Amino acid sequence: MKDMTDIPAVMTEIGRRAKAAAAELAFTPPARKTEALEAAADAVWARRAEIVEANAQDLAFGRDKGLTEAMMDRLLLTEDRIRGIVEGLRAIAAQEDPVGKVIAEWDRPTGLHIQRVRTPLGVVGVIYESRPNVTADAGALCLKSGNAVILRGGSESFHSSRAIHDCLVSGLRKAGLPEDAIQLVPTRDRAAVSELLQMTDYVDVIVPRGGKGLVGLVQREARVPVFAHLEGIVHIYIDASADPVKALTVVMNAKTRRTGICGAAECLLIHRDAVDTIGQGVVRALIEAGVEVRADETLQAIEGTHQASADDWGREYLDSIIAARVVEDEDAAIEHIRTYGSNHTDCILAEDPAAIERFVERVDSAIVMINASTQFADGGEFGMGAEIGIATGKMHARGPVGAEQLTSFKYVVRADGAVRA
Amino acid sequence: MKDMTDIPAVMTEIGRRAKAAAAELAFTPPARKTEALEAAADAVWARRAEIVEANAQDLAFGRDKGLTEAMMDRLLLTEDRIRGIVEGLRAIAAQEDPVGKVIAEWDRPTGLHIQRVRTPLGVVGVIYESRPNVTADAGALCLKSGNAVILRGGSESFHSSRAIHDCLVSGLRKAGLPEDAIQLVPTRDRAAVSELLQMTDYVDVIVPRGGKGLVGLVQREARVPVFAHLEGIVHIYIDASADPVKALTVVMNAKTRRTGICGAAECLLIHRDAVDTIGQGVVRALIEAGVEVRADETLQAIEGTHQASADDWGREYLDSIIAARVVEDEDAAIEHIRTYGSNHTDCILAEDPAAIERFVERVDSAIVMINASTQFADGGEFGMGAEIGIATGKMHARGPVGAEQLTSFKYVVRADGAVRA
Repeated sequence: MKDMTDIPAVMTEIGRRAKAAAAELAFTPPARKTEALEAAADAVWARRAEIVEANAQDLAFGRDKGLTEAMMDRLLLTEDRIRGIVEGLRAIAAQEDPVGKVIAEWDRPTGLHIQRVRTPLGVVGVIYESRPNVTADAGALCLKSGNAVILRGGSESFHSSRAIHDCLVSGLRKAGLPEDAIQLVPTRDRAAVSELLQMTDYVDVIVPRGGKGLVGLVQREARVPVFAHLEGIVHIYIDASADPVKALTVVMNAKTRRTGICGAAECLLIHRDAVDTIGQGVVRALIEAGVEVRADETLQAIEGTHQASADDWGREYLDSIIAARVVEDEDAAIEHIRTYGSNHTDCILAEDPAAIERFVERVDSAIVMINASTQFADGGEFGMGAEIGIATGKMHARGPVGAEQLTSFKYVVRADGAVRA
Repeated sequence: MKDMTDIPAVMTEIGRRAKAAAAELAFTPPARKTEALEAAADAVWARRAEIVEANAQDLAFGRDKGLTEAMMDRLLLTEDRIRGIVEGLRAIAAQEDPVGKVIAEWDRPTGLHIQRVRTPLGVVGVIYESRPNVTADAGALCLKSGNAVILRGGSESFHSSRAIHDCLVSGLRKAGLPEDAIQLVPTRDRAAVSELLQMTDYVDVIVPRGGKGLVGLVQREARVPVFAHLEGIVHIYIDASADPVKALTVVMNAKTRRTGICGAAECLLIHRDAVDTIGQGVVRALIEAGVEVRADETLQAIEGTHQASADDWGREYLDSIIAARVVEDEDAAIEHIRTYGSNHTDCILAEDPAAIERFVERVDSAIVMINASTQFADGGEFGMGAEIGIATGKMHARGPVGAEQLTSFKYVVRADGAVRA
């Protein structure tokens, strides 16, 4: 790759190499992938000083660019955070290898034995913003699932990502795997992103990791399939049959544990018969915890609430703010979620089994929670190990996307000379 | 729908209705769907005279248009073929309902019980050519899997499809299901197809059923995901370890049983060490059966072969023709398949387990056959009941697509007030 200004040529070459590496990764024994990931973890830890130094360059660039405090914090790598990256790599190394797993098998009277076997998807493109740790997480998850990956980190994390990527490549080398299995786009030029999104000949799926701006752009421009969620407009519905203590605990955790993650509650729906018994207490507790409650007319009677406007329904605050309204009945709550939700995670607090089943049946979000905090919407909490992201689409992947959902399958049909009549 | 010339408006209205119907179908009890399908089967049989009459109009139109004999035959409905449609509907009615099935479930130490539950995809668009029976098959499979469907039949089968569609709707009505669950595009205008392919707000997946022209058009123009195969460039590789009798039987069946289906063999690859022992006999038997064998230099020594040209590799004949060549070893066969194949169905004839496993690992076709005729590439033969088509993509669906692969899933997470630490 000589001429870094000819972006289409640079990206086509990356795509071609990724596809060649993917063909080889598809039948790499699990132990070799584990070895590569362990060696990468060792390398990251051994070279932590180098990584911190590269990160310092990014931090200086970010300061000059006037990044917000939150963005600067996401960009920052400390020895502690690097330890987190190392542990993440080792955890993925230790995970079960999904490739080659027989998902189903059956016999046919014609003499066929049919197996449905997991295969890698092929080439995954990951586009992310300023978190340099995504380089390690996404690279490792794609390798585990037998996919080649093309990483395109944010320009702010350019040097940090490159330093981490070097360690991943040294792991691949040590295990004798193709170095092109994990490639990092070597330019900050944004044209590389547009190019990546159109490379249907080389890329099987794109995973964007970042804010609404990035994800929206990817979803609009991509010709390659995308695993992503645009927003997490998370609703919690308190049914008439809800338990007051559980309702209080779950709502408080769902809203206040961390407000900036996609599983944080953004809207509270309260059954009219639960307003006095549960709703008022919950709303007061939220206000006491410093949450701004944007309430409908009925709930505005509670001191300290703010008046909700029409555009508070269906809004993702990612902040210490929640919308709240009273609904006539469960169906009105479901209707509200269907109208304003984003198919990410929605929750019912209820004890009545019929109310629970109605909600489960009729709310088609990737994750439907019953009497559980929506902040559990996470691959780690689901027991999947790492996740490459959360998907709200209905095709192929949904909810937290771990190694298994980065695979496809093929049918292997064995017989002893069987012919069709 | 008043103004049938405003195609975008007509199609948007159809999409809107389909989406509304899909929301309701998602939680329709299995028995109601079965009832609708049984009632539809009854209606098709009761109205068979009407259907034959409608078909006569299509046949007259087809004759005027100068359709080929093969196309006219595909278009034709006889009482016998209508009986086939009725049996197909009853078979789908009797199939297991995939919706709501728990695919996996597990507990987490945090108190969560997580279930992965099958859900419908939503709205399926089916675009097909002159086979009127697709109206019944595709409509029924989509209903079984809880999806609303928008059917767009070929203009040649316009009246036949409408008559069959009327029966499906009467089945829906009888079972109290929304009539918009199965809609037929009420115009022959081709603009309706372009519109359908772009309706990402309303349509979740498109299934094209027809020739390369139709499928290619759909794959190029669709903004909605597509389940399809463009071509079935099916290879059979005869390994050095192949059994001569099985090789002969399987190749003959794979090529000659029916030449016009996508699972028919199109290219024969013979290991150099198997040429004299097996290959020659197989090639001679093909020629004797009237197959035109387009051979490479070595095989041209066999009397009656024709000289293959460069464009015979990777070609789908759908006719009594086969390409044939000698390969140096198994890897050369695999390389040939990777270069010229279409990821549909490919087969190895071998007795050596190592050779078989190498082929299984390295050939990433939707269906990999071992010592079995490639003509088994069919949902019915796989035991899936009906299929809506065969897919060669890696995303979501692959191989024969039955009711199960027309579904997605969601996570249902139950707890007793669990909060995240």
